Amino acid sequence: MPRSERETSGRQTAALFSALAHPLRREILMVLNFRGGSMSAGEIAARFACRWPTTTRHLRVLQQASLVRVEKRGRRRIYQLKVSVLHQLLGQWLSWFPQKPKGSQAKRAT
Amino acid sequence: MPRSERETSGRQTAALFSALAHPLRREILMVLNFRGGSMSAGEIAARFACRWPTTTRHLRVLQQASLVRVEKRGRRRIYQLKVSVLHQLLGQWLSWFPQKPKGSQAKRAT
Repeated sequence: MPRSERETSGRQTAALFSALAHPLRREILMVLNFRGGSMSAGEIAARFACRWPTTTRHLRVLQQASLVRVEKRGRRRIYQLKVSVLHQLLGQWLSWFPQKPKGSQAKRAT
Repeated sequence: MPRSERETSGRQTAALFSALAHPLRREILMVLNFRGGSMSAGEIAARFACRWPTTTRHLRVLQQASLVRVEKRGRRRIYQLKVSVLHQLLGQWLSWFPQKPKGSQAKRAT
């Protein structure tokens, strides 16, 4: 993989895990998910008791990590969960850690 | 799922994503992984340029999240990566987000 791509991938991974680190951001993803993948800004604001500026800040972090996108429909902002990106990014990172078949646990450090 | 189990699962998820949030902790997991899954405390200390107390603090966070276990062998401490737990916990969380088949992206928020 060229160095520039490795760096992009590294930045994406960092953005992903930073985004997933906060419980409210994971909750926003869950709520979007259970609501079919998209909600208006008003619906999200009504769902979360905390102040709206806090929520928009968290939504921005999720956008920066490419986990959520926002679309303007007239005067409304619709937030959409990018499920496939979530699977792709977590899957890519997890693929660095192959699982050994059961019973083949090597003990290398002696 | 009984409430107590949901809470345990919630705590595990929180510990997991807190552990994965720090780049050095992800690097420790990667290095353990590429070294066959286990390294002695001395090998880890030699590998990481930062001070040893910082590294042990990060290792403790990884242990608390059940991603790493430590075993005493005589006077040595061997750290072992728990790959299956990593896959299990991330997989469990990710399973809340089913991927839609291509072309069936519903637009629910109107």
